[in-house]
Amino acid sequence: MNLELLTTLRQQNPIVFNVANFVTVQDVANGLNALGASPIMSAEVAEAESLVTIAGAVCLNLGTLTTRQIAQMQTVGRIANQQATPIVFDPVAVGAVPYRLQVAQDLLADFQVTVIRGNAGEIAALAGVDWQAKGIDAGTGGGDLIAIAKACAQKYHCVVVLSGPTDVITDGIRVTQVHNGTELFQLHVGSGDLLSSLVAAFAAIESTDSYTAAGVAAVVLAGTGELVADQLTAERPGTFAVGLIDKLHLVTEKELAQIAKYDE
Amino acid sequence: MNLELLTTLRQQNPIVFNVANFVTVQDVANGLNALGASPIMSAEVAEAESLVTIAGAVCLNLGTLTTRQIAQMQTVGRIANQQATPIVFDPVAVGAVPYRLQVAQDLLADFQVTVIRGNAGEIAALAGVDWQAKGIDAGTGGGDLIAIAKACAQKYHCVVVLSGPTDVITDGIRVTQVHNGTELFQLHVGSGDLLSSLVAAFAAIESTDSYTAAGVAAVVLAGTGELVADQLTAERPGTFAVGLIDKLHLVTEKELAQIAKYDE
Amino acid sequence: MNLELLTTLRQQNPIVFNVANFVTVQDVANGLNALGASPIMSAEVAEAESLVTIAGAVCLNLGTLTTRQIAQMQTVGRIANQQATPIVFDPVAVGAVPYRLQVAQDLLADFQVTVIRGNAGEIAALAGVDWQAKGIDAGTGGGDLIAIAKACAQKYHCVVVLSGPTDVITDGIRVTQVHNGTELFQLHVGSGDLLSSLVAAFAAIESTDSYTAAGVAAVVLAGTGELVADQLTAERPGTFAVGLIDKLHLVTEKELAQIAKYDE
Repeated sequence: MNLELLTTLRQQNPIVFNVANFVTVQDVANGLNALGASPIMSAEVAEAESLVTIAGAVCLNLGTLTTRQIAQMQTVGRIANQQATPIVFDPVAVGAVPYRLQVAQDLLADFQVTVIRGNAGEIAALAGVDWQAKGIDAGTGGGDLIAIAKACAQKYHCVVVLSGPTDVITDGIRVTQVHNGTELFQLHVGSGDLLSSLVAAFAAIESTDSYTAAGVAAVVLAGTGELVADQLTAERPGTFAVGLIDKLHLVTEKELAQIAKYDE
Repeated sequence: MNLELLTTLRQQNPIVFNVANFVTVQDVANGLNALGASPIMSAEVAEAESLVTIAGAVCLNLGTLTTRQIAQMQTVGRIANQQATPIVFDPVAVGAVPYRLQVAQDLLADFQVTVIRGNAGEIAALAGVDWQAKGIDAGTGGGDLIAIAKACAQKYHCVVVLSGPTDVITDGIRVTQVHNGTELFQLHVGSGDLLSSLVAAFAAIESTDSYTAAGVAAVVLAGTGELVADQLTAERPGTFAVGLIDKLHLVTEKELAQIAKYDE
Repeated sequence: MNLELLTTLRQQNPIVFNVANFVTVQDVANGLNALGASPIMSAEVAEAESLVTIAGAVCLNLGTLTTRQIAQMQTVGRIANQQATPIVFDPVAVGAVPYRLQVAQDLLADFQVTVIRGNAGEIAALAGVDWQAKGIDAGTGGGDLIAIAKACAQKYHCVVVLSGPTDVITDGIRVTQVHNGTELFQLHVGSGDLLSSLVAAFAAIESTDSYTAAGVAAVVLAGTGELVADQLTAERPGTFAVGLIDKLHLVTEKELAQIAKYDE
């Protein structure tokens, strides 16, 4: 796991263009900024080309999709493909809402994404595997998470990050499992959205190897969250959210290397 | 006051579908999530039916209404009525902005809401009582708050929560007054929005008795805020907001029962 | 520097109507509220006249502009001009995105603004000075910041606040430089948006002297941030953001007078 990418990211300060979930957008912007990237959010298709051009990567989040935003995502996705800019796609709640699944499938047919980041319920829905998702939450299912993630990656020819207590990262063949984390991520809305945007930030600086970029992003967020949670004496989701922004700025490669737990 | 509903809520983890105020949406989502509910927000009418179907309750917030969002609320409200899903309605700033009062009245004529939650200026405006509201704030007036809340409840055939230093909950006949709270709620934007969504969460698990659900929600939020404020040595609205999310997750029935101050 | 305006603001509790950047809107609302103003946000043109009428000042932020929002800003700007209500204009990212520069120029031709608040890259772009802006960040350039701010103020016949490590406030002739601040402002997304809205709050209570209002706003925010940063033992952007909201409520004229560092 090439954790040196964290230092590279801080040196390069890549611009990440987010078509965002308005519920979590401030937290995502602050998380990107604290880590060392430069966030920009937009809801206007007329500036899509300018923003893709200045961005190192794009993150498309379905969290609060509208027909207008879907049209914007189509344009942003196509331009990003033309410019070979990495695209991270976050299919929020496609496991629970049929309309969202249809939108996600249409967008995935419209342009090629680099990474899909979702929870088990969302990745299972995209892979066509039966699963009981619950709203924006992962829900419960009996499937093999690695098999589901691989099926999704193979179907859409991209890297998949299936996040949860263990994060599964796969390009359809290789698999990395990241075991770091804390249950507090589930108690803070937008942890998944932030991971998607951090994957985009790492993909911006490691655009030829998005599998590695995704794995490093997962270790950085899960590890940082674990370090923050270890300092708490009770489950305090508000304090955790503040501490996570602090620590994303302060965390070092060395700290992460000492606690990183993953199988490659 | 049936505070055991808090335990029921945490066991059932109801989905609350919010047509949200974009100013406070992240805080509301985190508050719902911290307490033990599952928030989902949407701005797209095409997924209205799916979301009402998976939700235990709906919360419609006028805080940042647009013509598009008003049309969405009409559809969501009608579908929720068809499915007998409880609706909480938050008429933000109807006391200060004539356009909003008209929109609120039109929506209230379009479908039947279960609970209206607003401050004194907002409830007075809906009830047709003269009052000096100020922007999003309650403003000042000389009326009898209980009479105003009752008049509003009788006019719209629903439960009313008139929140303020004392929360008044009424179904038009019965009245509960909740005396818990802290002035810090006024210093944190979105306290009212959060209360509306918490009322929806309790209505989701106690759909046959929304009067009780609303009263319990008021005690839970006011009591939790009071517990947080009691730990502060100065009026720190930022720290209060973080502590409120923490404590919504940690607070117990027993703690609330010990401090609850209400008249039924 | 007339810091007594802070006490006046808290006494008058002016309503500030924001056409907002959805990324930072909650933080801006809480900052205004904590300081002692009353925020209201709207995205609907149909209520523009009502909101301008009740507001003491208007803040127009291009941060997440859409064609719909641009049309709303046109209407709000014209009505504010008719009512002689101060307008603060925040040209987010006009230095990096040509489309935004065009929109900003069109709006500035449409109505007269009272104050423009931007970073070096944004003010340089409006002034027509060559500069290397980077996304939402100031970027780097070799120009003289005072000359750039003056040129922008003269071109648009308004007060300009060019914010950064040193804030430059000018009406095109007079210049105030505010040297307070902390690097943590750069680590927290939305510090500039908050400054713009605080300028509007002070302009609401000092509408005949917006140059003074802007200078006081700059000292209040930069000074408050400095006081918060002085209490931190490491660069913690999350903790800083919470502390800033706390301290905006608690800070006194006397505290600010003791640390204020400016040239007039």
